[in-house]
Amino acid sequence: MSHLQNELLQQFESIVHTRRYLHQHPELSFQEFNTAKFIAQELRSYGIEVHENIGGNGVVGYIRTPNPTKTIALRADFDALPIPDEKNVPYKSTVDGVSHACGHDGHTAALLGVAKVLQNNRDQLKGNVKLIFQHAEEKPPGGAKAMVEAGVLEDVDYIFGAHLASDLPIGTLATRVGPTMASVDAFTIKLFGKGGHGAHPHQTKDSLVIGTQLVNQLQQIVSRRVSPIEPAVVTVGSFHSGSAFNVIADKALLEGTVRTLNATVRKQIEQEIRAILDGFKVSSYVDYELDYLNGYPVLVNHEEQTNLVTALIQQEFGDEAFQIRQVSLGAEDFAYYLQQTKGNFFYVGSHDGTEHTAYPHHHPKFDFDEQALVNIGKVFLKIIEHYLIEEII
Amino acid sequence: MSHLQNELLQQFESIVHTRRYLHQHPELSFQEFNTAKFIAQELRSYGIEVHENIGGNGVVGYIRTPNPTKTIALRADFDALPIPDEKNVPYKSTVDGVSHACGHDGHTAALLGVAKVLQNNRDQLKGNVKLIFQHAEEKPPGGAKAMVEAGVLEDVDYIFGAHLASDLPIGTLATRVGPTMASVDAFTIKLFGKGGHGAHPHQTKDSLVIGTQLVNQLQQIVSRRVSPIEPAVVTVGSFHSGSAFNVIADKALLEGTVRTLNATVRKQIEQEIRAILDGFKVSSYVDYELDYLNGYPVLVNHEEQTNLVTALIQQEFGDEAFQIRQVSLGAEDFAYYLQQTKGNFFYVGSHDGTEHTAYPHHHPKFDFDEQALVNIGKVFLKIIEHYLIEEII
Amino acid sequence: MSHLQNELLQQFESIVHTRRYLHQHPELSFQEFNTAKFIAQELRSYGIEVHENIGGNGVVGYIRTPNPTKTIALRADFDALPIPDEKNVPYKSTVDGVSHACGHDGHTAALLGVAKVLQNNRDQLKGNVKLIFQHAEEKPPGGAKAMVEAGVLEDVDYIFGAHLASDLPIGTLATRVGPTMASVDAFTIKLFGKGGHGAHPHQTKDSLVIGTQLVNQLQQIVSRRVSPIEPAVVTVGSFHSGSAFNVIADKALLEGTVRTLNATVRKQIEQEIRAILDGFKVSSYVDYELDYLNGYPVLVNHEEQTNLVTALIQQEFGDEAFQIRQVSLGAEDFAYYLQQTKGNFFYVGSHDGTEHTAYPHHHPKFDFDEQALVNIGKVFLKIIEHYLIEEII
Amino acid sequence: MSHLQNELLQQFESIVHTRRYLHQHPELSFQEFNTAKFIAQELRSYGIEVHENIGGNGVVGYIRTPNPTKTIALRADFDALPIPDEKNVPYKSTVDGVSHACGHDGHTAALLGVAKVLQNNRDQLKGNVKLIFQHAEEKPPGGAKAMVEAGVLEDVDYIFGAHLASDLPIGTLATRVGPTMASVDAFTIKLFGKGGHGAHPHQTKDSLVIGTQLVNQLQQIVSRRVSPIEPAVVTVGSFHSGSAFNVIADKALLEGTVRTLNATVRKQIEQEIRAILDGFKVSSYVDYELDYLNGYPVLVNHEEQTNLVTALIQQEFGDEAFQIRQVSLGAEDFAYYLQQTKGNFFYVGSHDGTEHTAYPHHHPKFDFDEQALVNIGKVFLKIIEHYLIEEII
Repeated sequence: MSHLQNELLQQFESIVHTRRYLHQHPELSFQEFNTAKFIAQELRSYGIEVHENIGGNGVVGYIRTPNPTKTIALRADFDALPIPDEKNVPYKSTVDGVSHACGHDGHTAALLGVAKVLQNNRDQLKGNVKLIFQHAEEKPPGGAKAMVEAGVLEDVDYIFGAHLASDLPIGTLATRVGPTMASVDAFTIKLFGKGGHGAHPHQTKDSLVIGTQLVNQLQQIVSRRVSPIEPAVVTVGSFHSGSAFNVIADKALLEGTVRTLNATVRKQIEQEIRAILDGFKVSSYVDYELDYLNGYPVLVNHEEQTNLVTALIQQEFGDEAFQIRQVSLGAEDFAYYLQQTKGNFFYVGSHDGTEHTAYPHHHPKFDFDEQALVNIGKVFLKIIEHYLIEEII
Repeated sequence: MSHLQNELLQQFESIVHTRRYLHQHPELSFQEFNTAKFIAQELRSYGIEVHENIGGNGVVGYIRTPNPTKTIALRADFDALPIPDEKNVPYKSTVDGVSHACGHDGHTAALLGVAKVLQNNRDQLKGNVKLIFQHAEEKPPGGAKAMVEAGVLEDVDYIFGAHLASDLPIGTLATRVGPTMASVDAFTIKLFGKGGHGAHPHQTKDSLVIGTQLVNQLQQIVSRRVSPIEPAVVTVGSFHSGSAFNVIADKALLEGTVRTLNATVRKQIEQEIRAILDGFKVSSYVDYELDYLNGYPVLVNHEEQTNLVTALIQQEFGDEAFQIRQVSLGAEDFAYYLQQTKGNFFYVGSHDGTEHTAYPHHHPKFDFDEQALVNIGKVFLKIIEHYLIEEII
Repeated sequence: MSHLQNELLQQFESIVHTRRYLHQHPELSFQEFNTAKFIAQELRSYGIEVHENIGGNGVVGYIRTPNPTKTIALRADFDALPIPDEKNVPYKSTVDGVSHACGHDGHTAALLGVAKVLQNNRDQLKGNVKLIFQHAEEKPPGGAKAMVEAGVLEDVDYIFGAHLASDLPIGTLATRVGPTMASVDAFTIKLFGKGGHGAHPHQTKDSLVIGTQLVNQLQQIVSRRVSPIEPAVVTVGSFHSGSAFNVIADKALLEGTVRTLNATVRKQIEQEIRAILDGFKVSSYVDYELDYLNGYPVLVNHEEQTNLVTALIQQEFGDEAFQIRQVSLGAEDFAYYLQQTKGNFFYVGSHDGTEHTAYPHHHPKFDFDEQALVNIGKVFLKIIEHYLIEEII
Repeated sequence: MSHLQNELLQQFESIVHTRRYLHQHPELSFQEFNTAKFIAQELRSYGIEVHENIGGNGVVGYIRTPNPTKTIALRADFDALPIPDEKNVPYKSTVDGVSHACGHDGHTAALLGVAKVLQNNRDQLKGNVKLIFQHAEEKPPGGAKAMVEAGVLEDVDYIFGAHLASDLPIGTLATRVGPTMASVDAFTIKLFGKGGHGAHPHQTKDSLVIGTQLVNQLQQIVSRRVSPIEPAVVTVGSFHSGSAFNVIADKALLEGTVRTLNATVRKQIEQEIRAILDGFKVSSYVDYELDYLNGYPVLVNHEEQTNLVTALIQQEFGDEAFQIRQVSLGAEDFAYYLQQTKGNFFYVGSHDGTEHTAYPHHHPKFDFDEQALVNIGKVFLKIIEHYLIEEII
């Protein structure tokens, strides 16, 4: 254990204190005004240069060195979710219907702890550290895109991020090379048929029935049209048509999501949806409107940085502690940073065998073993040591 | 033209006046309190015995004779629709969003005119005339069922009813033997699957997709399972499932209607729906609730009375004026009377070649040529003359 | 009973003899060479002018009068079916796998009997009688079309035909005004996709799966697109695609039939099939070929002649003996005659309560009570008496 | 390059000669009698102990050492395909419609070359080498299962196999840890409905339409029921129902395949198919028979042996020459060996940039650059050197 990590361990109580404060005061995506202020204040109190309102509520702390060899960015997100806090803990959310049910409070507390340690040891650094505190990870278009567009990566060589994982035991960490989390698109389809009396279907274009045929054909995109070795989901999440039992509906409204791990497949699926809709124009005489919104891209971990993080984890926690992360069709806007800059996103186990820490993310009772925050911090520090203090591999 | 009919012609202005008063003061089904009072008052002003609140807002006028040979019932309905009046006429509805867009105002005005003429000539009658003014024809369970249950048909030998028909030219009349209008049932289906994240369909039972498969299979009831010479409709009028683009819905709610001209087919279709739902329980692991409500039965015109009405129409208006009415999958609660008592329901042409009278029933601009009210009255009087004054055929 | 009918009764044994001879020597559609010769011989033996090879194997007998007021045609068909005779009777078919399982032997024997009676009484006739013996009723394109094209109706005023009906008791007869039997079309669809390995669906256009979607959408033609009061059937009778469990099929072959009672609906359905196919071109990138063959048209009985036949039946057999025939989606090429010339096609009950005469038409054990042949003849004679001997109604 | 590899290079002409002889005399799966004899003869001519008719036409060559530390198995397959040879080469297949279109001739020639080298150097070996020449890889149930059941692996510590890969350039090699090729199951479904006349669907249970609904619901297994990150295919390869355009089919016959990379998913899909079929029993009143045959299991490369082969390839051919093999839903009965014994299956690039060597496997023009056979041999020799000569890693 390096002396930086030692210092981090000494920060444990303070990190937990910060985390619990954030947990009690959650703010929804794009509304994290107080959280942003709190982070800025903390950074300033450590003596770190602070930039606020970056791409929205984003906050950047900048630890600079005189002749920097490199600039390494570390990122944490800090928005909460519209999910009630159903835990029975002293640090329970004080905001009705809003909670940190995904662990972003932990990500931010861990990075603040790391920031303090690095600032205290800034004279040992050969390069700069950029501490990116990002708002609005939970809600597309997300905060990452705006922060990237605001130039936050312009002078950055590599970027790293971490996520707590309640499906991994405390003490284990995971990542993988290449596509890791999905691109996520949202679509809205409006089908325009012709309504009429329930007794006279032949005088109508029954948009409800045509809409059900549409959902049916959409199933074939995944079952027949996309390569079976390419994970993909086409989910229709809502279908609303008609308002009376005996009136044939004149329109149907469908909303859904497309998730893939491959940009080509992502593009293909959009085209397949359009082709199927165009088919119904011809076969069923309906019109349609399709709003197809590209959300977060595929999160692709870069090989070199991922191998580095893997090696650092194995060094620090032992070979057994490392797992190759299975791909997931969940999404994460850290993907935008990795489109621009080389880096890695890794997962830090957070359940300790108790029921309390076993709930999945986004569950109203989600919580984690706070030792995981130290584990996040340890990896971040190893990364900085590697690039900016000494070549340890 | 008999002297009764002559008297009716002299009532024309008064009938029109009554009709327009009703048109200006429409009341929705089951809320026709003032309309009922108005009818009762009119009947009393003619000197007719009145019974109110029969099976709800129903009103019965009773013209009795000392030694009645028979009792003949004539029926008119008087409720309005939740449809705005978009006509530009002096007698336009004064109630926002409510109008007599189906012509029930005309039915009632015509029967009141007939009532007055018959009361004036009551000493010529060999039997009783029962004047049934029925509420709530437009909305199941309807007024007819309740009036029948209240005993309105107990002493009635035959019953007759009329409906204006904007699809027939003024001067033509129509009816048919046997099934003429459809039974109408309403069903509500709740499918209970299991919700989840849009990225993880395999952890759910996607009630939206299963619901679309259900709609799809329901199509086969009419296309494959019911005899092609038996008219039948299975319409799903509303489908609501899910509330977010990226969340898989845990339930789906469907509402629909079944319409047939045959009681056996009606029963069969209900069973087919249940079988298909039971199939999805097995294939797709969902639960369901089915509320299946029997609405109005098939309207079946009795042969003898229908042939009589046909002959009377041909006598009065000439052979050319009569048409065999095509069956329709529309519904009419006059069907309940005909289940109990022999009789006939006939259609009276009401469009005069102008655009104004060409709109279909239930259209916000629906109106009719008021001469049609005299034609309704003429047939009613011919029927009474036939049964209670002299044998004219 | 007229003296003509009396003469017919005296022919009973001879009619039965003829019928049984034909029954023993059935010939398939378009191959009825000996049957045609036999008929011609018979007619000539009665002294009737004979025309052979009319539109194929058709035979026409012509009874002419000097100054004809009218020409009335009577038609019987004489082809047999590729169905084995499984009855145990002395007059069983002598041809393996071929039998008169539809009763055409009876139709022909009855008309020959009628021909003889009329020829014997030819001096009483005010007009001509054309005896049309038609081949190939069972197999489209059928014999009727060819005989009409050969001019058989050119000088005919009215035409009448009869069919035995094993679903009606002996002594009852039936017909109806208007559409009575269905038009019948045949279609063949070839879907051209792209084959491939069963493990790689994304490299193919899976014509099998697309074909099943097609069948699925075809269901909606009847369930949603055609008026529910218009009987219609779209049956896909065969579906063949693929030849190995693990190879994706490059094409699918579908064959089916469309049956309606309305020429507009018939045309509509063909268009709907094309629209649905065009839709799959767009949505699923397949090509297709559609062969759509119009078979027999709707058989539409003319009102005046049908009312006449109804009245004649009621006169001869009593009111109770007459039934209104329910429409059927079966087909009959007598429809072609009625497209050209006014007339009527009627049904003559042929089961006598025994199991032997209760089998449906086309059943290997189908047979009928031969008294029914006299009933056919009686109606034919009443028709001729009506038009050509005296006005009896 | 070791001296063993040097010896192998000197065998090149002989290996090519053997390969071309086999190419000219291909034999179908389970009929490889002459090929088996040829292999046995060759092995004997090298002085190797031979066992014939192992689990069918399988041949095993056994190179034993006095005090063996380990026994290592190397496997080649030798059956051909029912595919015509459309190449224009001197060594073209001499058997009509049969060819080595998958490269098994090459696998066998390479292993024979390796066998000779090892036999020549047997005194350097610390352990045994088992040379498994397997019949019938192309046709389930395959030869591997029978050879395993015959005990071929009983004394084997590790097993290795290779496959030519026309999608990889010559000089590159590939493999991966874990699931690599798919399990393959075959199913046959018979649906029993009730046939009838095309005009009367309501008297039938239309097995053709129900079968198309079945295919439709099967799509949802992959689209909704299986985890999207688990590659899976459910292909219906053939669908046959009905034989006439106007007769409703009484049964439907479907054949298909299921392919997965995960034994749990494999079992799940079988259960889903049964559930869907059971659903149609309930919803559509049909009976069914399902024959579900488990074919080859998932080919799962063991981590240790795969890492070893990866390292050996990188040593021998350079880091750039190695690729991580993408998973495929193709199948290979080498999977049975790996269920029993640790080992690895690797891919050896075989196209050299010419069109001639670019055709996919199973194409009638498939061929390969014969240098690839040396590459197979080199890896096999490195494996033996590693385990049985000296520890080189």
